Amino acid sequence: MRTMAATFSYPASTYFVRCCSMRENHDQVNHQMNSSIRTNGSFRSPVKVESLSQTASTITTLGQAVTIGENGLRQNIPTKKQLVDPHRQGLIIEGGVGYRQTVVIRSYEVGADKTATLESILNLLQETALNHVWMSGLLSDGFGATHGMVRNNLIWVVSRMQVLIDYYPIWGEVVEIDTWVGASGKNGMRRDWLIRSQATGHIFARATSTWVMMNRKTRRLSKMPEEVRAEVSPWFIEKQAIKEDVQEKIVKLDKEAKYMNSDLKPKRSDLDMNQHVNNVKYVRWMLETIPDQILEEHQLSGITLEYRRECGSSDIVQSLCEPEEDEILHGVVEPDYCTNLLNGLSSDIINGSGVLTCLEKRPLRYTHLLQTKGEKQNDEIVRGRTTWKRKISTMPFST
Amino acid sequence: MRTMAATFSYPASTYFVRCCSMRENHDQVNHQMNSSIRTNGSFRSPVKVESLSQTASTITTLGQAVTIGENGLRQNIPTKKQLVDPHRQGLIIEGGVGYRQTVVIRSYEVGADKTATLESILNLLQETALNHVWMSGLLSDGFGATHGMVRNNLIWVVSRMQVLIDYYPIWGEVVEIDTWVGASGKNGMRRDWLIRSQATGHIFARATSTWVMMNRKTRRLSKMPEEVRAEVSPWFIEKQAIKEDVQEKIVKLDKEAKYMNSDLKPKRSDLDMNQHVNNVKYVRWMLETIPDQILEEHQLSGITLEYRRECGSSDIVQSLCEPEEDEILHGVVEPDYCTNLLNGLSSDIINGSGVLTCLEKRPLRYTHLLQTKGEKQNDEIVRGRTTWKRKISTMPFST
Repeated sequence: MRTMAATFSYPASTYFVRCCSMRENHDQVNHQMNSSIRTNGSFRSPVKVESLSQTASTITTLGQAVTIGENGLRQNIPTKKQLVDPHRQGLIIEGGVGYRQTVVIRSYEVGADKTATLESILNLLQETALNHVWMSGLLSDGFGATHGMVRNNLIWVVSRMQVLIDYYPIWGEVVEIDTWVGASGKNGMRRDWLIRSQATGHIFARATSTWVMMNRKTRRLSKMPEEVRAEVSPWFIEKQAIKEDVQEKIVKLDKEAKYMNSDLKPKRSDLDMNQHVNNVKYVRWMLETIPDQILEEHQLSGITLEYRRECGSSDIVQSLCEPEEDEILHGVVEPDYCTNLLNGLSSDIINGSGVLTCLEKRPLRYTHLLQTKGEKQNDEIVRGRTTWKRKISTMPFST
Repeated sequence: MRTMAATFSYPASTYFVRCCSMRENHDQVNHQMNSSIRTNGSFRSPVKVESLSQTASTITTLGQAVTIGENGLRQNIPTKKQLVDPHRQGLIIEGGVGYRQTVVIRSYEVGADKTATLESILNLLQETALNHVWMSGLLSDGFGATHGMVRNNLIWVVSRMQVLIDYYPIWGEVVEIDTWVGASGKNGMRRDWLIRSQATGHIFARATSTWVMMNRKTRRLSKMPEEVRAEVSPWFIEKQAIKEDVQEKIVKLDKEAKYMNSDLKPKRSDLDMNQHVNNVKYVRWMLETIPDQILEEHQLSGITLEYRRECGSSDIVQSLCEPEEDEILHGVVEPDYCTNLLNGLSSDIINGSGVLTCLEKRPLRYTHLLQTKGEKQNDEIVRGRTTWKRKISTMPFST
């Protein structure tokens, strides 16, 4: 925590966690869903509900007689723990503390190759995280903050996020997204996700993220108050979606970086409800700095983001990007260098199952930096690292 | 048809209708969902299924034993008519020819004011239209084209779209989207939508669109072949979401237009699977040309789009925008003019329920044009008209 606080005095309020500026003085009465399977907030409930089909008979009684009066009631945020959300196809799993949602990849969530875009996947991670809090009965009148956090004027801020994607789901594919939370140090929280094929159970993607609390007014990081710990810690489990290796530091790029897009200006539609640039826009700016040829021939297999500060609507942003040395071995740049390097090898080795295949299988890696362009200095918004693998036309699926 | 063809020689392949460039030579076997309520393609089936809750007991048998082998199988497009899609919360209604889907507004589909963005609403219209075709058993290996269309090398192109929005659904709100199709002239098709509150039945938005067929190779408009008419016409109903008035022509703007954004360049993420700019991007370009002050104080209540030609990845685009005369009465521009105009009126009338209130209730209207910037000439992409009303803080809902 201490090391992070040093570089994290005004971090990004992104992802599922944003402070609520709209209705925070609004003493709102949340009405509970008219549910026959309400559990009164008990944790690790003996009711085991592991799939929607098991609860189909009870689903019909849910969410019918909703009284609509104002926004809060139209949202219908539960005040007590729910086990099933039939409209979102959500379920509480993992002995009462994890969340699973079944999602069909929509037509507008896929790109030119009919597979879900990275942006869509990031959006679905945000969505399921929020729906998990929604089901918990802890959600207050904001984007992910609990009742105790609102009383203490605290919001969540994300400090780190890592996503690994083995396979991109395609248009119309049914996937299950699991998400859960755990402790991260003394004052932080970890949130993990798994995305898998509903039909085969095959895991498509894994993600993990680290969250800390920030005072909404002072914009300073905060310890987790006991009141909040009492709310969230019963939901903590130790399972990790991504094995925690020693985290490789992402170096800070400077203006010597190989690729740079300057003068990026947030547009109205890029802003979230805090008038800050949405996290998905960050990722788009990062990826647009990579040359087209790379993007056409490769697919992103991993992304790590380290957040430093928020980006406002008046900021002018620079996106810097630097390939790792072995980019040249992929023949992307400087073909002469590549030829010279391989000159001593026989063509058999190069064209067979030897060096070239080996090289092509090696992932490409890029280091990224988004920073604001100031008159006196540039301020870091987010550092990133992306990993890429060659696109393959047929997916290695078995029945 | 004849008049349209004159200005519509290369129209936008947008919305739910895009030709399939990826897998069109791919002789694909679609496997039907393992459904206990399959209806063998009969129309106006006697089975009346009007809500998901009525079918909850049968839902559990659907979509389980899916064999995953390749993309087509992972998508699992039905080859015969289906009545219920439990994963998408979709239902065939209207005596077997309409489609209804229940949707929860997601966290990333709302803007700064926590209401669904116009872009999200347009996306959901596309999504439900495609899911309607999906359920029909007619969907071939493309974005909305039927088997007969693929055999005749035809794709759908949209020529006109109109959306009227009374209320924007908010984050977490459950809405029902109904969509259905009808005849439009001899060779066209109309598709309509209604978006309503699931809890109250209150209608939030209405939309209508007109579609014609285009030969994928020659890019010329085509008559509807008998084979295709036999597929789609049994689904036609006469109901209209928006009463068809005499359609007011949208004038073509020129460079005298009051507002203009030039040098708009499509980015990678703006392109659809035909490498053409996505329709939602068109709308974003249009709205970004309207001054911020208008956008902050008003919400869009209506949009009409008339499509002329596609926009490719190398096109440079101009967005022109012209307010109707009465913009000045809203005090948006030229305050002196406004003051002079109102000078003769007593402050009672102005501040009471008189002129000013009346003026403020009058909708603002803008005319739009997107065009490509060519060396010799500019080509129209789409003409548009938007209507705006003042934002109100509390929504006029009753229980």
